[in-house]
Amino acid sequence: MSLILAVNAGSSSLKISLFQRQVNDPPRLVLTSSTSSISSPPAKFTFKVVDVPGSELTNSGHKESAEADLRDHESAFGHFVDKLARYAEDLKQATQATGGDRVNLELGQIRNVCHRVVHGGNYVEPVVITEQTYHHIERLSDLAPLHNGAALRVIHAAITVLPNSRSIAFFDTAFHKHLPPHVAAYAIDQNVARKRGLRKYGFHGLSYAFITRSVAQYLGEDPTKLNIIALHIGSGASACAIRGGKSIDTSMGLTPLSGLPGATRAGDVDPSLIFHYTSQAPLDMEENGGEILSHKEGVATEVHISDAERILNTQMGWKALAGTTDFGEIVRKAFPRSALEKSDDDKYKLAFNLLLDRILHFVGAYYLALRGDIHALVFAGGVGEHSVELRSKVGDAVRCLGFVALDEGANRGVDSREGVVVDIGNGGQGGKKVLVCRTDEQGEMARECSIVEDFW
Amino acid sequence: MSLILAVNAGSSSLKISLFQRQVNDPPRLVLTSSTSSISSPPAKFTFKVVDVPGSELTNSGHKESAEADLRDHESAFGHFVDKLARYAEDLKQATQATGGDRVNLELGQIRNVCHRVVHGGNYVEPVVITEQTYHHIERLSDLAPLHNGAALRVIHAAITVLPNSRSIAFFDTAFHKHLPPHVAAYAIDQNVARKRGLRKYGFHGLSYAFITRSVAQYLGEDPTKLNIIALHIGSGASACAIRGGKSIDTSMGLTPLSGLPGATRAGDVDPSLIFHYTSQAPLDMEENGGEILSHKEGVATEVHISDAERILNTQMGWKALAGTTDFGEIVRKAFPRSALEKSDDDKYKLAFNLLLDRILHFVGAYYLALRGDIHALVFAGGVGEHSVELRSKVGDAVRCLGFVALDEGANRGVDSREGVVVDIGNGGQGGKKVLVCRTDEQGEMARECSIVEDFW
Repeated sequence: MSLILAVNAGSSSLKISLFQRQVNDPPRLVLTSSTSSISSPPAKFTFKVVDVPGSELTNSGHKESAEADLRDHESAFGHFVDKLARYAEDLKQATQATGGDRVNLELGQIRNVCHRVVHGGNYVEPVVITEQTYHHIERLSDLAPLHNGAALRVIHAAITVLPNSRSIAFFDTAFHKHLPPHVAAYAIDQNVARKRGLRKYGFHGLSYAFITRSVAQYLGEDPTKLNIIALHIGSGASACAIRGGKSIDTSMGLTPLSGLPGATRAGDVDPSLIFHYTSQAPLDMEENGGEILSHKEGVATEVHISDAERILNTQMGWKALAGTTDFGEIVRKAFPRSALEKSDDDKYKLAFNLLLDRILHFVGAYYLALRGDIHALVFAGGVGEHSVELRSKVGDAVRCLGFVALDEGANRGVDSREGVVVDIGNGGQGGKKVLVCRTDEQGEMARECSIVEDFW
Repeated sequence: MSLILAVNAGSSSLKISLFQRQVNDPPRLVLTSSTSSISSPPAKFTFKVVDVPGSELTNSGHKESAEADLRDHESAFGHFVDKLARYAEDLKQATQATGGDRVNLELGQIRNVCHRVVHGGNYVEPVVITEQTYHHIERLSDLAPLHNGAALRVIHAAITVLPNSRSIAFFDTAFHKHLPPHVAAYAIDQNVARKRGLRKYGFHGLSYAFITRSVAQYLGEDPTKLNIIALHIGSGASACAIRGGKSIDTSMGLTPLSGLPGATRAGDVDPSLIFHYTSQAPLDMEENGGEILSHKEGVATEVHISDAERILNTQMGWKALAGTTDFGEIVRKAFPRSALEKSDDDKYKLAFNLLLDRILHFVGAYYLALRGDIHALVFAGGVGEHSVELRSKVGDAVRCLGFVALDEGANRGVDSREGVVVDIGNGGQGGKKVLVCRTDEQGEMARECSIVEDFW
């Protein structure tokens, strides 16, 4: 059999799914693994067999283990491959011992390793990694070093550890390749823009591609005729207006900094904010009612690009507002179910309401961008798929745009429902639908990889 | 009689209106003056008498004159006061010569000088200039030095040249004082935000106050029950969602940089853009397909706050896109009426479409912010009041939100119509209205000044 390894490297995590390519069907998920807290050891490692014939014969995986040695993405990838090799060996021995049909699972069957790369610059299609393309990605990562770094390290590891597999980069920017010029352009000198690559790229593209296909299938629509507003709300969050299956606008821009706030990212801020934020001037606006002097000789800030990126990407967002990256905790404390859970601090409400406000901002904007001709509003991503309260508040607000009211039970019951797409609307006649989609970036890479003949 | 001088200092212009306070009526406009091109001499000066009994006896003013000596706002203000004094003297002699009723117009009658100050920081009401408040405004101008600078210089000049008049600062931020906390807050540490004053303030407030009052009067609505989306589109451009007569969201933020693009201002850009834009790295993205290295040792940018502000405020916007600050020229070249006017360059179309796209973005967002409960969409500002094409395209797009179709003739004929508010809709039943409002920041200051008893 032919296997596809789909690798998704986050800033401190590594999610890997192994798929079997099938000729006339979508790739079949074989097993999944995740490594988290890579940058704050001990890392947590999971390895979960989903669907391997004979896998009931082994006791491999399933549990989470703490792995103190995994301190970077290279070692995390290597650890996964070791684990996979041991599991394949266990499986082989177990099937031989029972005399069962021989289960064929070997590292050598991994023909393609798909890597999610956040920023693809000018690349609009997946690209096979060669020395040349690797260096090219390395350089275009200049626009988003914090985002592409981990993927580049894993690509390097994959080439070393799996020398007989082909590594292919899949870009989160690619789905937005059809953005109209006046949407993609910033109001800046277009000569500088072209030469430095300064335009809206948009991100979460693998997720939006998955959502578009899955929602079209669910609704029985031709994907090239599907119009939706998709919300990928996770620790990184964005919105996308999709017309005829193509992205016509999205909230992230040159980098993932723009648009919606995330767990540690501010989203849209005044372009001058970072300079005042990092000023060395004494913090005394509150005491003296206006004595902020960021421009004053001596404290006037020179901000380095790397500092700006680090601060804007990692020190803001709802973590900065509410002290936690866990949006579930914010919801529980903003909407306590008992007096015991009640908090006097309104920082949780502020964080919740701020995200809600910014989400509605883009929903309204994209409703008009699509001229109201919309099949559905779709929630996805960790928060989008799991936050009953966020969906409920968004659902209330968008009634005025002709979306159906939510079915409270359906909205609360999403986690217990099967299927990739779940309808949470009340089925009201003529109303636009409200859906939840369990998005799957690894699945999307495997699917795209599977159908490109050149990759086989 | 009691006179009010209303002064509006732009970065390179000075607009002044003289009003007569009336007890039970709004202030009566007596004369207007403008000085433009102050930063690119010779400045152009106009002085136009509107309504002074006996003014037909003099030949003062009316023409534009080039004034090579006016190289800053102080001298421009002094020049106006000299001109006003000479005119008052001419008028006195003319009326004495004809034996007519003595016309009473003297500098000493100017009780209050109202100054538009863009950034008011924590100030939410007009404030009488004293040594203390002047220095306070000077300091809070740290957040917007390019915007408050000219006003501060004119305030200084007014105190010197008209020592018996009271100077009062009116703030463009004040109208937005009721922004909900989750709208005003950025997703950043709120301790830093409070201490440095880092939040959304919003601008064009005098204009929005004028628009709100004028539209309510025009529609026969109670201003405290008026819900509108107002677009102030000029060389600076912003949008405002007004519910119950109060601003509940607006597109500008900590400074006027955020939101819509302007003549020389980019509007919303990725927060990291300025660092790549100012990079010293060779400009070779285009040639080598990705060779941009803003982070590279040696070219990695440290950006100074003042450079960032200067570049973001003065080197971007539709000037950067199309080479002109004149939006009328952009429209003529984007939509040529004859082959002669046709341009092969699509930069004009890009500039037009980009502004249109961003305007629609905010209209959609604010429609939802107001939950669709809206009396009217209102165009104002130099571009908003004069660009038939822009209004036409916006009007087409917003049909899906329940606004009436534009009446083509009414839309084309706005400039020839009388009145502060002009309806450009086709009067369709049940549709939300589309209006143009000739906004008047000086008029708004005079009106507010007139009704505050403490100022008299």
